Amino acid sequence: MIIDCHGHYTTEPADLKRFRQEQTKAAQNKTAPPLRASLKMSDDEIRDSLECAQLKLQRERGTDLTIFSPRASGMGHHIGDESVSLEWSQICNDLIHRVCALYPQNFIGVCQLPQSPGVPPKNSAAELTRCVTELGFVGCNLNPDPSGGYFNAPPMTDKSWFPLYEKMIELDVPCMIHVSGCCNPAMHTTGSYYLNADTMVFMQVILSDLFKNFPKLKFIIPHGGGAVPFHWGRFRGLAQDMKLPDLRAHLLKNIFFDTCVYHLPGQELLARVIPVDNILFASEMIGAVRGIDPETGHHFDDTKRYIEQLSLSTEDKAKIYEGNARQVYGRLSAQLDKQFAAA
Amino acid sequence: MIIDCHGHYTTEPADLKRFRQEQTKAAQNKTAPPLRASLKMSDDEIRDSLECAQLKLQRERGTDLTIFSPRASGMGHHIGDESVSLEWSQICNDLIHRVCALYPQNFIGVCQLPQSPGVPPKNSAAELTRCVTELGFVGCNLNPDPSGGYFNAPPMTDKSWFPLYEKMIELDVPCMIHVSGCCNPAMHTTGSYYLNADTMVFMQVILSDLFKNFPKLKFIIPHGGGAVPFHWGRFRGLAQDMKLPDLRAHLLKNIFFDTCVYHLPGQELLARVIPVDNILFASEMIGAVRGIDPETGHHFDDTKRYIEQLSLSTEDKAKIYEGNARQVYGRLSAQLDKQFAAA
Repeated sequence: MIIDCHGHYTTEPADLKRFRQEQTKAAQNKTAPPLRASLKMSDDEIRDSLECAQLKLQRERGTDLTIFSPRASGMGHHIGDESVSLEWSQICNDLIHRVCALYPQNFIGVCQLPQSPGVPPKNSAAELTRCVTELGFVGCNLNPDPSGGYFNAPPMTDKSWFPLYEKMIELDVPCMIHVSGCCNPAMHTTGSYYLNADTMVFMQVILSDLFKNFPKLKFIIPHGGGAVPFHWGRFRGLAQDMKLPDLRAHLLKNIFFDTCVYHLPGQELLARVIPVDNILFASEMIGAVRGIDPETGHHFDDTKRYIEQLSLSTEDKAKIYEGNARQVYGRLSAQLDKQFAAA
Repeated sequence: MIIDCHGHYTTEPADLKRFRQEQTKAAQNKTAPPLRASLKMSDDEIRDSLECAQLKLQRERGTDLTIFSPRASGMGHHIGDESVSLEWSQICNDLIHRVCALYPQNFIGVCQLPQSPGVPPKNSAAELTRCVTELGFVGCNLNPDPSGGYFNAPPMTDKSWFPLYEKMIELDVPCMIHVSGCCNPAMHTTGSYYLNADTMVFMQVILSDLFKNFPKLKFIIPHGGGAVPFHWGRFRGLAQDMKLPDLRAHLLKNIFFDTCVYHLPGQELLARVIPVDNILFASEMIGAVRGIDPETGHHFDDTKRYIEQLSLSTEDKAKIYEGNARQVYGRLSAQLDKQFAAA
């Protein structure tokens, strides 16, 4: 089985966009928000939005299952206040749940959280619990910078995050570290902001005892870990200079990297410096980069093609494709059984 | 000749630190600043600070010349106002000039600029001009985020930067993109902040016509280009999706990457995806990472050892070691002749 652990619903029905625009405008102007009941998204529309997109690419590329969450750039935690963020998160998560119900063999849910700048992360625990216990989700996306580009939240090793981590551990779900759309004109959402947040969080945890205090906490750092594998020597050296443990012992029981790296040399580096047990297959397809690489004739984000070319054993590739995801997402296998039974 | 294009004076005489501490405290408390005349740094102290450090490593590692600038993390553009930044920059640049006068065959100067948050970059043109025309410097370090970690300056493609770029072109000097010490608790100066600024600026220029408008402008992106080479496919794909020219044509006449990447796999990736004409040898020695890699038995930052292992021709290595630096730093060869004649 080939599990793509990083997919966002980027082809949502049009009325969702209309609702969000009205909700955003109402939050900015402090006028009445649109009614949730006004949202019109039929099952047929959802099917249409996926059949020619994610599902088509799953079939073409030979992947089986996508761990699927709301559009990351759309989370927009900096828009409006906590109540706006909560309503928007519930709507987006419910929509992912409908996708998983329509295609239980193709998608399994991960939620966005109702984070908001300056609001304690623990306030997201209720929505996380709802998504996991009621909707069958297996993880969450956790935003280290709800400001949308100014990096003014406490580091993810600050104790304000701990109650949410306790809930994640209780529910046996990991988080993917993922910022949302960037409103800072100095940074580009998918070109620099995403990667910079990934690198930032990795360094935050190097400097902390986070995983000593929370040995069951699991972070997936997407986009191949930002700049981390390319600078693996730098991070190893920084840790050593600070008399910290070797990074494998210090972090790699708890930190995992996905394979959203859109060229073969990058994938080769990733597989060379990061232990195979810490790599999870992912493509973030229909995401940041949608075109075909003229050098290969294939989509930049068809990451399976790169993995296929790596000189790894079949067993190691199976870990990257499936085994590691089943380990990291503790609820995945049971939820899959449930969804397959429902299919 | 082996030219290390990225060295900072990180072993300065102790009194410089005392002065800066007093200057910082005075700026914070709005009290009288220390007198510049109070600074006591003898030639012998400067010699001592280098003989057992940069010069020793140059000899041991077999490099010849370091393009040398003030300590990057010490620039501290967010400390005090523009006048504080100017005095500090002048002091630091004058000190680099003394180093180059004492060791004209080993060091050539690059200046820090008196940037300050919210102050137009053009205000740095006078100090740049002084350093180049009076002190014989061949480049400058340009900080894309004078806030020290909040990324709230306009992108480097904003027209507010243009007068400074015009001055750089007039003087025939490139800049190295380099932030300073991070005062944002979410980011670590050398672990994430430096790399993130590098990646941010690369993406800023992708989105612009900067080098069409300033074809003679040259940026050196240090630390191997941050996350850029590891995500080269992502950047190529983003540019293509936006109907921008191929990155080689769009940027690589003007953008250069240094080799401050502290492990062999990273160096191999850099040399594989970035054209050899765009790579400049550098180590940033006695910088971010000072220890010995137990896996190799050599210093992490002894980057020459990695370059030696790359499967590149002697001609290509000579470009990385020397030829490219002479091209990018337009005044380098003439200034070197002058300094060698003075030796």
